[in-house]
Amino acid sequence: MPISDQQRQEIAAQRAESHTTRRATVPALEEILYEAIPVLDHGFVRVVDYMGDDAAVVQAARVSYGKGTKRISEDKGLINYLIRHRHTTPFEMAEIKFHVKLPIFVARQWIRHRTANVNEYSARYSILDNEFYIPAAEHLAAQSATNRQGRGDVLTGAEAERVLALLREDSARAYAHYEEMLNADSSGNRRDPSRQGLARELARMNLSLNFFTQWYWKTNLHNFLHFLSLRADAHAQYEIRVYAEAMLDVLQRWVPHTYEAFVEYGLGGVRLSAKALDVVKRLIAGEAVTQESSALSKREWRELMAALERSEQ
Amino acid sequence: MPISDQQRQEIAAQRAESHTTRRATVPALEEILYEAIPVLDHGFVRVVDYMGDDAAVVQAARVSYGKGTKRISEDKGLINYLIRHRHTTPFEMAEIKFHVKLPIFVARQWIRHRTANVNEYSARYSILDNEFYIPAAEHLAAQSATNRQGRGDVLTGAEAERVLALLREDSARAYAHYEEMLNADSSGNRRDPSRQGLARELARMNLSLNFFTQWYWKTNLHNFLHFLSLRADAHAQYEIRVYAEAMLDVLQRWVPHTYEAFVEYGLGGVRLSAKALDVVKRLIAGEAVTQESSALSKREWRELMAALERSEQ
Amino acid sequence: MPISDQQRQEIAAQRAESHTTRRATVPALEEILYEAIPVLDHGFVRVVDYMGDDAAVVQAARVSYGKGTKRISEDKGLINYLIRHRHTTPFEMAEIKFHVKLPIFVARQWIRHRTANVNEYSARYSILDNEFYIPAAEHLAAQSATNRQGRGDVLTGAEAERVLALLREDSARAYAHYEEMLNADSSGNRRDPSRQGLARELARMNLSLNFFTQWYWKTNLHNFLHFLSLRADAHAQYEIRVYAEAMLDVLQRWVPHTYEAFVEYGLGGVRLSAKALDVVKRLIAGEAVTQESSALSKREWRELMAALERSEQ
Amino acid sequence: MPISDQQRQEIAAQRAESHTTRRATVPALEEILYEAIPVLDHGFVRVVDYMGDDAAVVQAARVSYGKGTKRISEDKGLINYLIRHRHTTPFEMAEIKFHVKLPIFVARQWIRHRTANVNEYSARYSILDNEFYIPAAEHLAAQSATNRQGRGDVLTGAEAERVLALLREDSARAYAHYEEMLNADSSGNRRDPSRQGLARELARMNLSLNFFTQWYWKTNLHNFLHFLSLRADAHAQYEIRVYAEAMLDVLQRWVPHTYEAFVEYGLGGVRLSAKALDVVKRLIAGEAVTQESSALSKREWRELMAALERSEQ
Repeated sequence: MPISDQQRQEIAAQRAESHTTRRATVPALEEILYEAIPVLDHGFVRVVDYMGDDAAVVQAARVSYGKGTKRISEDKGLINYLIRHRHTTPFEMAEIKFHVKLPIFVARQWIRHRTANVNEYSARYSILDNEFYIPAAEHLAAQSATNRQGRGDVLTGAEAERVLALLREDSARAYAHYEEMLNADSSGNRRDPSRQGLARELARMNLSLNFFTQWYWKTNLHNFLHFLSLRADAHAQYEIRVYAEAMLDVLQRWVPHTYEAFVEYGLGGVRLSAKALDVVKRLIAGEAVTQESSALSKREWRELMAALERSEQ
Repeated sequence: MPISDQQRQEIAAQRAESHTTRRATVPALEEILYEAIPVLDHGFVRVVDYMGDDAAVVQAARVSYGKGTKRISEDKGLINYLIRHRHTTPFEMAEIKFHVKLPIFVARQWIRHRTANVNEYSARYSILDNEFYIPAAEHLAAQSATNRQGRGDVLTGAEAERVLALLREDSARAYAHYEEMLNADSSGNRRDPSRQGLARELARMNLSLNFFTQWYWKTNLHNFLHFLSLRADAHAQYEIRVYAEAMLDVLQRWVPHTYEAFVEYGLGGVRLSAKALDVVKRLIAGEAVTQESSALSKREWRELMAALERSEQ
Repeated sequence: MPISDQQRQEIAAQRAESHTTRRATVPALEEILYEAIPVLDHGFVRVVDYMGDDAAVVQAARVSYGKGTKRISEDKGLINYLIRHRHTTPFEMAEIKFHVKLPIFVARQWIRHRTANVNEYSARYSILDNEFYIPAAEHLAAQSATNRQGRGDVLTGAEAERVLALLREDSARAYAHYEEMLNADSSGNRRDPSRQGLARELARMNLSLNFFTQWYWKTNLHNFLHFLSLRADAHAQYEIRVYAEAMLDVLQRWVPHTYEAFVEYGLGGVRLSAKALDVVKRLIAGEAVTQESSALSKREWRELMAALERSEQ
Repeated sequence: MPISDQQRQEIAAQRAESHTTRRATVPALEEILYEAIPVLDHGFVRVVDYMGDDAAVVQAARVSYGKGTKRISEDKGLINYLIRHRHTTPFEMAEIKFHVKLPIFVARQWIRHRTANVNEYSARYSILDNEFYIPAAEHLAAQSATNRQGRGDVLTGAEAERVLALLREDSARAYAHYEEMLNADSSGNRRDPSRQGLARELARMNLSLNFFTQWYWKTNLHNFLHFLSLRADAHAQYEIRVYAEAMLDVLQRWVPHTYEAFVEYGLGGVRLSAKALDVVKRLIAGEAVTQESSALSKREWRELMAALERSEQ
C-alpha cells in the first residue's frame, strides 16, 4: 500500500483544483496530474508539475515571439530533425517534476544523473516508514554466469524461499531495532520515558538499502530523455527500469512528437562503430563476412549480429 | 521600437489564449505573461512560461503529497529559514523562462551564468536585424580613474557628441556592409543577381558588439536569485543591471515571499570577514577603532565603513 | 583496519614513483600524495591527483601567458580580493581528486554536491567488504530535544550499550546473510555448489546504511571550498564533518593562500541580513537594542548575539 | 603574429622549468606543454596544464588503490568497452586546461558548451589588442543555396576582393575609433589630456565580432570528447573546426588509447534510426530498397546512402 488514506485525500484535493492560465497546457498530462502510478511493491511515480509541451521545443528552436507553431507536420519534422542531429538545447526548454517513492538502492543509482533537481525526504529530520522492497518471486534472479553485472535464471524452490525469508526477516528486525534505538514510533512519540533515544541521523544507519525513501525530482526534457535512454534500456537493473518504463508513458502523454522521435532515433536505433559500419557495407555487397574476417572483437561481433538480427553469433 | 507589428500581434494572440489547468498558477505573473518589458533602446525581457510558486518551494522542502502549505505565515517563515541557512535545493524546484532581446556585449556577460538553458537566435542560419545599442546621453560614462572596471563621470560637450557620432556611424556602416556582403536584405532576398553573397556565418563577423541578439533563457529560482544577486548589484555594468532590475519586478510578482527573503538576506545584507567581525565587536564595545588599529587593509576598511554607514573612510 | 596489506603495497609502489614534469607542482601536497588519511573506524581520504596551485588561480584571473605570478604579496592580495568579491571562476581552474572510503549514509549526503565527478565501487558488479561503521562511545548522541535535525547529549549506560549491541549484531547478521544469499565469499568463490546464488545487484539490498563504500571523487577548487563551507560547518553531521576536516588540512597543504582567504572570509566570517545590519549599527551607536526592539525573530536574534559573542540570551 | 616577443619569453621561461612529481605524467604532452599552436591568422591553442592519463580512466573505473593498470592490452580493451557502452564517468576523471586565442564570433559558439571552466580576458578591465580575423581567400565561402546554415562555393574575383576590403577597412576603422573613444592607446596611456575617455566597458561595443579575445578553458576528458565530436564534425563552422582539429592532435598525445576508441566509436561511427536499421537489414537480405519503399524521408535516405557510400541519392 504505497499511499495512506490521508495522502490519498491530499492528492484528491489537489486534483480537484482548477485554475485558469495563459500557459501552454497538455490535457493528456493534466488527466493524470498528481496521481500516484504504482511501481514495485511500495513505490510510485507521480507528476506534480510540468512546463511546456512539444510546441515549446519548436518555439525555442525558432526563438519565436508567438506560439512557434506553423503546421503540426512542420513541428513534427523539426523535432525529428533536432533529435537526429543532436540539437539538444531546445529540449532543455520544457521541464517536468515528479514525486517518486523508491528503494534506497535504486535511489543511489538514480542520483548519479546529476543534471536534475532533487529534494529527498530527510531521515536526519524525520522518521522513515516501515516499508521495504521484497522482490516478487519472478524477479528473484540468480547472478549471471557470463555477465558480472547481470542476472541469470530466476531462483526457485528452497533457495528462493530462503532468500525471501532472509530479506523479510532482516528488514523487519532492522526496522524494529530502528524504532527501539530511536525510542520512538514512526510518528515520533517517545516510547520509554526513561530513555533519551538515539539521534535520528544515527539510528537510520541500521536500515537496509531496500527501505523506501522518496523525493521530488525535477529535470528538463533533454535530461529526461537521457535518463530514459539509460534506464529504460535492457541493461538497466530491473528495479530502476520499471520506474523508467512508467515514466516513458508519462513522456508519451506529455510530448507525443518528442516521444515518437525518441523511440525512432533513440531507444530503437543503434550506433555502429567505424569497423561495424565497414562490416555492414561488406554484407550489403554480398560478401560472407565472419567474425574472423571482420576487424571486430568477438563481443562486438556478437553485438552487431544481434542488432542485425542475424543468427551467426 | 523593439517589437514589430507582426510580433505584437503574435504576442497578443498568445495572451488571448486561456486554458484550464490543475497546476499552481500565479495570477500576478499571468497578468504580464508574454508581454515585452522594454529595456535599453531596443531590448526587452518577457516571461514566456513559468512553473511553480512560493508554495512549490515549501512543498519540495517538506516532500509533501499535497499542497505543502499549512498556513501562509508558516510558509513564509520556512522560506526565510531556507534562504538564511543556504538550503538552496527547494528553490531549484520552481522554474521560469524568458525571451530576452539584448546587445551582444551584454549577452556575452550574461552567458557566463552556465546553470541556465539557452536558445539564441542564430546568425549562421538567419540574418540579424538592423538594431544596435546607443547609450543615452546620461549613461555615456567616462572611464573611472580609480576603478579599472568602473565608470566615472558622464561625458559631456564635444567629447560626448563625438563618441555618439562614432558609435552611430560605425554601427550603421557595419550593417550596410553586412547586407552588401550577404548580397541580401534582412528578409534574405538577393539583391544583385550576378553575385553569390558571402555565407551568413562569415558575414556576421562584421557586426559590432552593440548589435542586438535575442534568446530564450530558462533557469530555476535558485539560479535566478544568484543571477540577480550578481547582476542587480551596484558593481554590475549598467547595461546588464537594467535587465536584472526588470527581472526583479518579475520575481516580486512571481514569488513574493521568496522576493522578500531575498531582499532581506541577499541583496540587503552584507558579509563580514572574521577580521571585520572583530572590528564590529570592538566598535560595539565602544572602542575607537581605526584602519591602522584594525587588521583590515585600507580597501577592506573602506568597504566596512561604507556598509556601516560611518563617515571614517 | 581500513587498508589491506596488498592495498598498502599498491599505495607504496605508487608513492615510490617519480616523474619529471613542466607542470606546477606543490611539494607539501606531494608529500602525502596517495597516502590514506584515516577517518572514522574504517574509512579514509587520500589525494590521488591534483592540478594547479595558488598561482593557477592568479594566472587564470589574469589570463596570462606565463606563470601569472608577479610578487607573492600581490598574488595573495589578488586571491583575497577574488574571494571577498565572489569572483569564483578563477578557483575553478585548479582541480583535486580524492579516493574516499565512507559509510553509505555519509555517501548519500555527500553525493548531493552535484558539481563533482564520481566513480563509485559497484555492488552490482563486485562484492562489498565486511566493514561497517559503529560510532565510538563519545559520538553516540541522543536526539536533540530542541533541534529536529540535531544531536543532544551522549547516550550512556545501558541505553548506550544496547544501541551499540544492536548496531553490531544487525550489521554482522546482514553481512552473513548477504554472503549466504550470494552463495559466495567476498572473493566471489561459490560456497555451495548446489545453489546458484542471488544476483549481486539484488543481494546488496540486505546491507545496512552503515556499510562502507568507496569512490573516486574529483572537484575543482571553487566547488571544493563550497563543499567544505557546508560540511566543515558546525551544523553538519559529525560523520561527514570529520571527512571535511581531514580535507581542510589537505586544502592548507595544497593552496595555502586560498586556504587563508577561505578561513578569513568564508569559514570565519558571518552574513548579516539587512535587519541584523541595522541592529549592529544601533549597537555601535550605543543604543540598548533588545530582541523586542529589533525587527528580528527570536531565532535570528539568538544567532546574531552568538555571532557577536554577546551574553544576551 | 599571434604572440609578442615578451609573451614568447614568458612561455619559454615556463617551458624551461622542471619539477619532480609523484603524479602520472605524459611525456608526449609535456613535450608541447605551454607551446602556442597557431590557429587562423592570429589565434592559437596551447595546453597549460593537465591531470591524469589513459590509466586514470582505468583506475577510476576500477576504483583501484594503485595504478589501476594490469596489462596495457586490458586497459585498452576496458577503454574501448567504456566508450562503446557510454560509461562516461571514468572519462570525467582526467582534466585538461587550454589557453586559447580566438575571434569573438567563435568564442560565442564555443561558450555554449557549458560544462567547462572559463576565464576570459576582460575588456571591461583591459584594452583589447588590434587583432582581427580576416578569412584566407580559400575560405571566403558563399552562402549555401541548399543548406541555410552551410557554405557554398568559394567567392572569387571582384566579389571576393570587395568582401575582403570591407572586412579589413571596417575592422581597422572600428579599432581606430575604439582607441579614439578610449582616448588611450593599447597600453592604456592617455592620448589627449583634455579629454576623459569613454569607459572601457562601453568603448568595447564598437569592436566587431572578428576581433580576437582569449581565455583559459578547462574541461574534463568526457566533456572534451563531446566538444570534439560536435566541433571537429564536418557540419561545424570552419573557423571553430580548425581549433577542434588542433585539439584532436593534443588528445592523441595525451590519451592515445582513448583517442583511438573515440575515432573508432565516436567520430568514425554512425547512428542508425530504427527505420534506417530496417533498411540496412533489407539491403543485407538482398532486397532492392528505394527511398519510396523505405520508411525514410528523402533527407534521411540521402544521409543513410551517404553513410553506406552508395550511389543512390
